[in-house]
Amino acid sequence: MSQQIHTHTLANGLTLLAERMPHVRSAAFHILVPAGAGYDPSGKFGLAGLVCDLMTRGAGARNSRQLSDALDNLGVDRGESTGTLNIQLSGATLARNLLPTLAIYADILRRPHLPDDELDAAKSLSLQDLQSIEDEPQRKVMIELRKRYYPDPLGRDQRGTAEGVEAVTIDDVRAQHAALYHPRDVILSVAGDIDWTALKTEVERLFGDWKARTRPTLTPETIIPRSDHLTKELDQTQIALAFPSVPIGHSDFYHARGAVGVLSQDMSSRLFTNVREKHGLCYAVYASYETFKDRAAIVGYAGARPELAQETLDRTLDEFRNLANGIEDEELDRVKVGLKSALIMRQESTGARSSAIASDWYFLNRVRPLEEIQSAIDGLTVPGVLDYLRRNPAKDFTVVTLGPAALRV
Amino acid sequence: MSQQIHTHTLANGLTLLAERMPHVRSAAFHILVPAGAGYDPSGKFGLAGLVCDLMTRGAGARNSRQLSDALDNLGVDRGESTGTLNIQLSGATLARNLLPTLAIYADILRRPHLPDDELDAAKSLSLQDLQSIEDEPQRKVMIELRKRYYPDPLGRDQRGTAEGVEAVTIDDVRAQHAALYHPRDVILSVAGDIDWTALKTEVERLFGDWKARTRPTLTPETIIPRSDHLTKELDQTQIALAFPSVPIGHSDFYHARGAVGVLSQDMSSRLFTNVREKHGLCYAVYASYETFKDRAAIVGYAGARPELAQETLDRTLDEFRNLANGIEDEELDRVKVGLKSALIMRQESTGARSSAIASDWYFLNRVRPLEEIQSAIDGLTVPGVLDYLRRNPAKDFTVVTLGPAALRV
Repeated sequence: MSQQIHTHTLANGLTLLAERMPHVRSAAFHILVPAGAGYDPSGKFGLAGLVCDLMTRGAGARNSRQLSDALDNLGVDRGESTGTLNIQLSGATLARNLLPTLAIYADILRRPHLPDDELDAAKSLSLQDLQSIEDEPQRKVMIELRKRYYPDPLGRDQRGTAEGVEAVTIDDVRAQHAALYHPRDVILSVAGDIDWTALKTEVERLFGDWKARTRPTLTPETIIPRSDHLTKELDQTQIALAFPSVPIGHSDFYHARGAVGVLSQDMSSRLFTNVREKHGLCYAVYASYETFKDRAAIVGYAGARPELAQETLDRTLDEFRNLANGIEDEELDRVKVGLKSALIMRQESTGARSSAIASDWYFLNRVRPLEEIQSAIDGLTVPGVLDYLRRNPAKDFTVVTLGPAALRV
Repeated sequence: MSQQIHTHTLANGLTLLAERMPHVRSAAFHILVPAGAGYDPSGKFGLAGLVCDLMTRGAGARNSRQLSDALDNLGVDRGESTGTLNIQLSGATLARNLLPTLAIYADILRRPHLPDDELDAAKSLSLQDLQSIEDEPQRKVMIELRKRYYPDPLGRDQRGTAEGVEAVTIDDVRAQHAALYHPRDVILSVAGDIDWTALKTEVERLFGDWKARTRPTLTPETIIPRSDHLTKELDQTQIALAFPSVPIGHSDFYHARGAVGVLSQDMSSRLFTNVREKHGLCYAVYASYETFKDRAAIVGYAGARPELAQETLDRTLDEFRNLANGIEDEELDRVKVGLKSALIMRQESTGARSSAIASDWYFLNRVRPLEEIQSAIDGLTVPGVLDYLRRNPAKDFTVVTLGPAALRV
């Protein structure tokens, strides 16, 4: 499968990316707009999600119902999500329906009605989403970890707060839309059975006259992360932890991914075999890598019965610390096989590809060719990963627990 | 994309199904064995899951660790799941690694070690999985609904019970494996970049001398479903409901799918627009169709703040009941577009295809050509769906709620 990424940045700053996948009949798209919860003003936490919800309740010539009907008539499988820094609109449909779908999304982004009479329903949904987290301790503990680990606004829960959501007015929604929804730094990526020339022409027509403006700058505060325990009567003690890693653009990025892979990638990875399988200490345990442009972390999670929680935490932290003491060639080889296998399989999905090229552009300002990623993975060696781990040891853990009793860290 | 399904039933009763997808580099497989939790003997509920777990802890010439390493070395992204009637082993990897992967699965199915010294760890995991449901009310209420709606063993939670899991001995595990793991009615499906002749030859070699035996028959008891309320202090009242539908092999199957699609398929479907969006009553509400070979149900779910729960339930039930009073052409047209669009998009994924062809064979003893499904969807009309709804009205609801207070049904 030969790969070609088309790139076109409009004069107003919106970047269109496209990958043609000739053997499929579908096309998927991702739109990233730097309008996430990090921009919510104090006292109105939750505003970004309300803007995102209301944008789809009528836009251009269509009211809320007509908009929803039109997208369903095009067979679009779609989603919206509000992140800390970006909001994301995405969808997939038959390739022949892509251009009319994008025309509707131009309305959503540029000409939403933001109707006053639907604000209460949107707020009610936001409040219920916030409340539902109280019944989902695994999600809850990860949210509480991020709040304590990352500086504001990076550690913010994109759902906001109940007080913030309740305080939002329709004028806040409209002002926030006006302030943040403009083309600079917007990414629109497409993957599938596309005609690049027709796509580029249509995107110029739909977005070319969208006025560029300056976006407010987010400046994360400086904080010292703090460990914490939250008491709640639960059947499982929820354990979340984080420590620093290198961001995706860093020359050590693949070393970091290799290291976390040895801990938690496959069923033969250390956390799964040593904490879960061998000792049966906990049902779920994992570590994963997450990145912003300028900073990154390894985060870990485990959920265990309260009487096993201390041992689960201790063993999990030991696995992180022990990594620098030695890795077998076979362990790293498996990680490399798994990373490459997943890379090729993701390559076959229009949704995964459109997401990956948008993400690459967002973080790196370019799309990595698959060959580049493959050869970086191939180039990983045990001495290289160990050297990275000695320079970046697993320490300064931030540990947040949720359950009946606190644990010793 | 022309479609060709290869079928080969071995003399011992195992059926191999394969679909060649020439433009991909991966291959995915699904293995269904009628060895689910429905076969668990009284007092040992949870046995099926323990057998499934222990099977992957060493098989053939490999111990637990070596087995896990070997699959990871082949880059297999895999999973095991225990269902009520079947256990399912599935995976995806690069097509060139498919045959060596299947050779390992032949060991897992036929020559597992079922090691005594790993039973405690497996039991501990099963118990923790059971316990974790107590902290996940949405999953919990659906489990409790199925227990009360379907006759045993169809309504059984495949996780079993804590007492059952604790009572299982290694002899139970080995006896259950001997009784249920044999080739009759086993389905092995593959989709991807496969060579049919080589695949068929290898599957004959791996499974051809597996001895056929008679499988015990499951006879569901006869029960009257019952509504119920379970009191628990939660931030959201969890509502689950079910009523009868027609099974997948029935001539009315597509009518039933069309009807449930009008209620809950897209964002313009009735439950989403009328219960969630218009009134903001609840964050999550859906209906879906589920089937056994001989019976089926429409199940519904909603989660709402306790003070809104009664109204949420009332409106949800009204939506079900009102369906027979009229459907707009546009509503059904959107459902048809969505069903066809999803069908074509699923067609592009090796994992989705291998799952679909295994499922068709299981339920129908044949694989429906895509053209057949498409033309059945195209053939749906409003009068046809309404006629079905009048013959099969939404009534006799079984409603199970979990939350601080009971609701009126």
